[in-house]
Order: sequence, then structure tokens, then C-alpha cells
Amino acid sequence: MIHPIRVIFGDTDQMGVVYYGNYLRFFEASRAALLRFCGKSHRDLDAWGVALPVVEAHCKYGRTAHYEDLLEVDVTVGEVRGASMRFDYAITRGKDAIATGWTRHAAIGPNGRPRALPAEFVAVLSSAAARTPGLGPGY
Amino acid sequence: MIHPIRVIFGDTDQMGVVYYGNYLRFFEASRAALLRFCGKSHRDLDAWGVALPVVEAHCKYGRTAHYEDLLEVDVTVGEVRGASMRFDYAITRGKDAIATGWTRHAAIGPNGRPRALPAEFVAVLSSAAARTPGLGPGY
Amino acid sequence: MIHPIRVIFGDTDQMGVVYYGNYLRFFEASRAALLRFCGKSHRDLDAWGVALPVVEAHCKYGRTAHYEDLLEVDVTVGEVRGASMRFDYAITRGKDAIATGWTRHAAIGPNGRPRALPAEFVAVLSSAAARTPGLGPGY
Amino acid sequence: MIHPIRVIFGDTDQMGVVYYGNYLRFFEASRAALLRFCGKSHRDLDAWGVALPVVEAHCKYGRTAHYEDLLEVDVTVGEVRGASMRFDYAITRGKDAIATGWTRHAAIGPNGRPRALPAEFVAVLSSAAARTPGLGPGY
Repeated sequence: MIHPIRVIFGDTDQMGVVYYGNYLRFFEASRAALLRFCGKSHRDLDAWGVALPVVEAHCKYGRTAHYEDLLEVDVTVGEVRGASMRFDYAITRGKDAIATGWTRHAAIGPNGRPRALPAEFVAVLSSAAARTPGLGPGY
Repeated sequence: MIHPIRVIFGDTDQMGVVYYGNYLRFFEASRAALLRFCGKSHRDLDAWGVALPVVEAHCKYGRTAHYEDLLEVDVTVGEVRGASMRFDYAITRGKDAIATGWTRHAAIGPNGRPRALPAEFVAVLSSAAARTPGLGPGY
Repeated sequence: MIHPIRVIFGDTDQMGVVYYGNYLRFFEASRAALLRFCGKSHRDLDAWGVALPVVEAHCKYGRTAHYEDLLEVDVTVGEVRGASMRFDYAITRGKDAIATGWTRHAAIGPNGRPRALPAEFVAVLSSAAARTPGLGPGY
Repeated sequence: MIHPIRVIFGDTDQMGVVYYGNYLRFFEASRAALLRFCGKSHRDLDAWGVALPVVEAHCKYGRTAHYEDLLEVDVTVGEVRGASMRFDYAITRGKDAIATGWTRHAAIGPNGRPRALPAEFVAVLSSAAARTPGLGPGY
């Protein structure tokens, strides 16, 4: 799924580019949008009895991004194991490759212990991620 | 002008609400959107020979805002003096008043010294602020 | 009380100066240090049965601050009313006045309703704020 | 080298723990401290004719970190290749392992093109990183 990000002043640093740590904010915004698009917000993950804390994050930086750039974050579901999953991200600005990365998440049950991911949950996420909806301001 | 903001995890703090300092990010995002809507980005302010550094900022907090809230920032042009101007902000979530505030900006010329704001610049901004365009994802 | 802040890259924006919204982080860091110095962390405010949510914030910007600057935030207790109080801040770098500001806080009891500030609490805070301890890395 | 970080409210998110993206801020703060300790700030890298933009970042999360925690970031010089280098980080709170990670940096010359890292620069950094100075508030 494509999630748009408009770069603001507060995202940049004194090199005149987006601060490297802020890409993890962009990743998070896009995976929240994906969950929301599934009708399953982080809030609603409760309904599945699953929490998805980040256990590992990675980012590889390409072309620099600047103030006012309209970036697109393409978020997809990566490797799914029994009790963990990965989201993959590719950030572009037009044809420029800005950054790629991934986050790995543990699947935790209501009791705070690892649990298997519900197959239906993964299916819903994956099929949503494959779509590219026309996104309005309330995306 | 109305600028939408979707609250992400990274905007919240451990009280479960938007961190108080992040409202200044929301203010900035909305005034950048206003300038952009005028076809006058911060970048293009050069064309007017004007920079607008913030010299004072104020925020009054109302109802708390939460993760995934879709906030609306209404940004308008406040008091304009010879060599400074104010932007006013009102943030709402549906009928809830979340925050109000303002930022005051000095008008600085290319030589780094105070200068009078061009009347046309102020007119363009003010009339743009009065409108509420339908905003797409690239707002 | 004086609280030191070392400016990092992530605090700056593309103008090469500290982003205006980050001063509210610096304010918060200093008032947390003050509470800690009183042996009363935000956590421990529970012991007094008081929460202090920010209801208003103000910042006036002076000289710009830059990457690697070692700033000093002087935090003091401002006006105390029945059920609210103010913290005042003055940020300097050597003899340069960088910013001044204040935050106003409601005093909220365990039931979520306004309550009177315990006189002893205010006295402890005020006398701590008046001191300038030698601060080590664990300040 | 050990660099202390005090967690503030603004670092946390609504899960009551440090937001995952902020660890990249902590990494940056520690490597800036290391360069400073060598008498070679990012500013002074000019003297060496070297810029070190981040090209890749990685973080693995362990125990969660909370408001007011005093974290220690142990930053060391990792693999050095001809025209790039890595910094490695291990964040602890007492005996708790909070996070580990690394950042890889390209070495760029004044003309914006890759260049070999000066051997002396690498030697100075590496020996500084191996030390654990007593750090004052101006660390």
C-alpha cells in the first residue's frame, strides 16, 4: 500500500535533508495506515488478541529527501513466521529511491507471551498491502 | 485554511496523548501547507525577498488528542504589523477543541535585517487562508 | 535550577538552528530534572496525589542555537494559584539569551478533578529551583 | 566510550516506553560525543576533509526503556573499509540490555565524492572510543 508523507521543517536537520531517525516515523505512519485500511487499527489489534512490538528495525538510505517533498512509502508484508512478522518499506519521490527498510515485530498475546499470528489476520494484511487505494486526506 | 493531521505513535507520549511540544510541529505543517497553497513555499519566499523566522510561539491545550485521531488545523493570518506577522491556529477533532495557538514571525530581508512585508504577499496569504479547499493526499 | 542541554543533529532543522518546537522538549527536560532533584519525579507525584498536565505553553526566541551548543536552562517556579502553577524558563549559551518561556499546569487529583496544590509540595519545588547544584552526568 | 542519556517524556510513546525511532537519536548523540571527545566535532571534520553521512542504520530492541531512565550508550568504532566506516552501539540500563545497533557511514570528500578515510582519523576515533572518561554535564 502507498502512504504519502509530506516533509515538514521539523523533519529536516541542518544538512538540509530529512534526519535519518525520522524515517522510522515514516515507516510507522505507513504501517499504521495499512492496519487502519484493514479496519484493524493498533487499537483494534486487541480484537485479535495480538500486540506487535518492534523487535528490530533497519533502514538503508538512498537519495536525500528535502523539505516539502511529497514522499511515497510503499509498505508490504514481508516474511511471516510462527510468532513474528516483518513489514517492508520502500520510500520514493517520483523515480528517486529515497530509502528502503524493514521492521520485525513479535506477536504477543494478552498475557504478554509470544503467540502464533492468526492466519486470517495475516491474510487480511497481506491482501490490503497489495492494493494501492486512492487516498484522501483522511487516509 | 484547514490542514489535516493524522496522529501517529511517534507523536504520543506515555500519558497516551499527543506530546505537548508536537503541537508546534502541527502548527508548522499547516502554515507550510498555506504557503504552498499560495504557490509560495518557504523556498519561494526568496522570490519575495522575505524570510519569516518564528520569534514567539504560544499554545493553549484543550481536550487531549490520541493516536490515530484525524485532527484539523485551521490556520489563518493574524495581526500584520510593518515588519512582523502572526499566524493563528485552531486544532479540532470533530466538535472537540483540542488546541489553539499562534506564532509571530519577523519579516527579514535578504540582508538579514527587518523589512516591511510586501502588501501583495499579505493579501495573497490572507485570501488563501480564508478558503477551505478540498485537500487530496498531496495537499 | 540550571539544567544543561547538549544540542544534537536531530534537534536542528534545515535553517541550521534548533527547531522551534524542540524548545518545549528542553523545557520539559529541565522541569523533570527539577522534580527529580526534589526527590519527586513525575512518577512520585502520585505520592502527593497530584498530576500536573500542561494547559498552556509559551516561548519567545532570541539568539539562535546550533548543533553542539551546550545550553543552560534555568527553570524556576512561577506564579502559583490555588489549583494551577507555572514554571518559568530562561535558556542561555554563555552570555547569549537564546529563549525564554513558561508552561502553566493544572493541578489534578487522583479522581481527575482540579485540586489545591499541597503547600509543602510548592515549598519544596521553589526552594530546589532556587539552588544551582553541581550537576553530574546523572543529573 | 560511554555516553549517558536521560529519558524524557518527549522520548516516550503511548505504550509507556521509549519510541523505537528515538534510539537513532540516542545513537547520534553518542557518536557526536565521541567525535567531540576527540576534539573533532562534526564541524571540525572539515579539517580532515571528510563528511560521514549515514548510509545504513540498524537497531535491535531488548528490554524496554522508560521515562527518567538513565541509559548508557557504549559507542565503538566498528568495521572500517576504504571509504566507509561503522559505529556500533550498545545501550544498557544497569545490567539490562536495552538495545544494540550500528550505523554505516560513507566517507565523502569536499568535492562530494567518496574518499579514503585518513588513517590518523580512524586511529584517533578508535582509541577514544576505547576509553571511558568521567563525563561531566558538558560531556
